[in-house]
Amino acid sequence: MEKRAFLYEGKAKQIYATDDPNLIIVHYKDDATAFNNQKKGSIAEKGVMNNKIAQAIFNELAKHGIRTHFKEQLNERDQLCEKVTIVPLEVIVRNLIAGSLAKRLNIEEGTKPDNTILEISYKNDELGDPLINDHHAVALKAASYEELDKIYAETRKINSVLQEFFASRGIILVDFKIEFGRTANGEIILADEISPDTCRLWDAKTGEKMDKDRFRRDLGNVEEAYQEVLKRLTSN
Amino acid sequence: MEKRAFLYEGKAKQIYATDDPNLIIVHYKDDATAFNNQKKGSIAEKGVMNNKIAQAIFNELAKHGIRTHFKEQLNERDQLCEKVTIVPLEVIVRNLIAGSLAKRLNIEEGTKPDNTILEISYKNDELGDPLINDHHAVALKAASYEELDKIYAETRKINSVLQEFFASRGIILVDFKIEFGRTANGEIILADEISPDTCRLWDAKTGEKMDKDRFRRDLGNVEEAYQEVLKRLTSN
Ligand SMILES: Nc1ncnc2c1ncn2[C@@H]1O[C@H](COP(=O)(O)OP(=O)(O)OP(=O)(O)O)[C@@H](O)[C@H]1O
Ligand SMILES: Nc1ncnc2c1ncn2[C@@H]1O[C@H](COP(=O)(O)OP(=O)(O)OP(=O)(O)O)[C@@H](O)[C@H]1O
Ligand SMILES: [Mg+2]
Ligand SMILES: [Mg+2]
Repeated sequence: MEKRAFLYEGKAKQIYATDDPNLIIVHYKDDATAFNNQKKGSIAEKGVMNNKIAQAIFNELAKHGIRTHFKEQLNERDQLCEKVTIVPLEVIVRNLIAGSLAKRLNIEEGTKPDNTILEISYKNDELGDPLINDHHAVALKAASYEELDKIYAETRKINSVLQEFFASRGIILVDFKIEFGRTANGEIILADEISPDTCRLWDAKTGEKMDKDRFRRDLGNVEEAYQEVLKRLTSN
Repeated sequence: MEKRAFLYEGKAKQIYATDDPNLIIVHYKDDATAFNNQKKGSIAEKGVMNNKIAQAIFNELAKHGIRTHFKEQLNERDQLCEKVTIVPLEVIVRNLIAGSLAKRLNIEEGTKPDNTILEISYKNDELGDPLINDHHAVALKAASYEELDKIYAETRKINSVLQEFFASRGIILVDFKIEFGRTANGEIILADEISPDTCRLWDAKTGEKMDKDRFRRDLGNVEEAYQEVLKRLTSN
C-alpha cells in the first residue's frame, strides 16, 4: 500500500488516502502538544515508538476479540488502518484519579475510586474538548444513546484487557483516552491510537510516570520513558 | 410550629430547627446572587414571592404523586418542610438550551434539542459546582448508581408535570435546577425550592424572560417578573 492524497493532519499524526477507499495510512509524528495546544514541542523518535506501541496494543486487543481500525504496520512511522468517520467524542477511562479530574474535584492524584470512571468529552478544539454527558452527546448529534451504550461496553472490555496487559509488564494503567469511528458499513470500532501520548502509565514498582505527563510537567527523560514502555510491551 | 435553633443559611434561605426533629422551617430571603456568588444583590420581596411560588409548585407536584419536602406555609416567608440530608448534587433539566450550556457548547440560546438534557453538578461552592457525570458522583460518594437512577426518573416526572403546569399559565419552562435529600428513613425526596431563582421561565407569547436572568443580566423589572409568575401560577 502506498500513500496517496494527504487527507488531514492532527497534532500527533498525518492521515493519507490509499488506493483502497476503505483504508488509510496513519503516519506518526514526533510533535507533542499539551494543555489544549498551549504547550508545543517534540519528543525525539516519538512517532517511531508510538507506532510500535500502538501496534502492540491493537494486536493485544484483537487477540481478545476487540475490533480495531489497525490492519498492519507498513514501516517505522506508518500504519495501514481502516478509514472511519470519527465519533466526535474523547472517551476517557480512569482507574485512578489523576490529571484534570484530580484538579476539577480537588482529589489527590492517585486516589483509587470504588468504581471505574468513564467520561466523554466533546472533540472540539475551539471549545477546549469540554466534558459532557450522554444527553449532551445526543443533543450534539455526536452519537445516539444506543451507540453510547455500545461504546461504553466496548470501552470497559478494552480497559480490562489493557489493565491486565500493562500489569503483566509491571505498569499501572492509570487512565487513558480513546476514540471510536464508524466504518463504511456503520459499525463502530476503536480507532486513533493508544500510546503513552494518550494514557497515564505508572511504573508498578516505583510509581514513576512513563507517559506524556513527563512532557506536560517537564519531568525530563521523556524519550527514555516511551522507550521503556515500548521495551516492556514488546519483550516476552 | 415555632422556629427553634438557627441551623444554617445559604444564599437564598435560612434553615431553622423546630420541636420536631424531622421538620425544619425554611425562611425565604430577598438576597440574590449569581455567577457562583460573584454578583450579589437583592430583589425586593423576593422571599415573599418565592415562598408562595414554591408552595404552588410543590402542591402541583404533590397532586401528581411526587413526594416533596413541603408540608405547609407558615407565614409570608416561612415554610414548614421535612428535614433531609441534601444529596450534594444539583440536578438540572434542560428543555431548551440556554445559559451556561449554550456558552459551553457554543449553541444559540433557545435551541431545542431532540432529547431532554439532564445534568448533575457537584454541590461544592469552592469548586464552582462543576458539571459531573454519574461515575464522578459515585466516586465522590454523593449517590449510588441506583439512587441516581431513582433521581433521574423522579426528575423526568417533575419535568413533565411542571412543563404542563407552566404551559397552562403561558410560560415556557426552559430549564431548572432541583435538589434531592434523604429523609430519616432513607427515602430520597425533592427538597430545596423551585422558583424563578432556580428556573428559566420565558413568556410563551413574547419570549420575555421571567426569572433570575433579569437580575443576572441586568434586564430590569426583576420584581415585576417574579410578581407576574406568582400571579399566573396562583390565579385560576
Ligand atoms: N481510522 C481513522 N480514520 C479516519 N480518521 C482517523 C482515524 N484514526 C484517527 N483519525 C483521526 O486522525 C486525526 C489526526 O490524529 P491526531 O491524533 O494527530 O489528531 P489530534 O491532534 O489529536 O486532533 P483531534 O483533536 O482531531 O483528535 C484525528 O482527527 C483523529 O481523530
Ligand atoms: N428540606 C431540607 N432539609 C435540609 N436542608 C435543606 C432542605 N431544603 C434545602 N436545604 C438546604 O438549605 C440550604 C440553604 O438554601 P439556599 O438555597 O439558601 O442555599 P444556597 O445558597 O443555594 O447554597 P447551597 O449551594 O448549599 O445550595 C441549602 O444548602 C439547601 O440545600
Ligand atoms: Mg489525537
Ligand atoms: Mg439554593
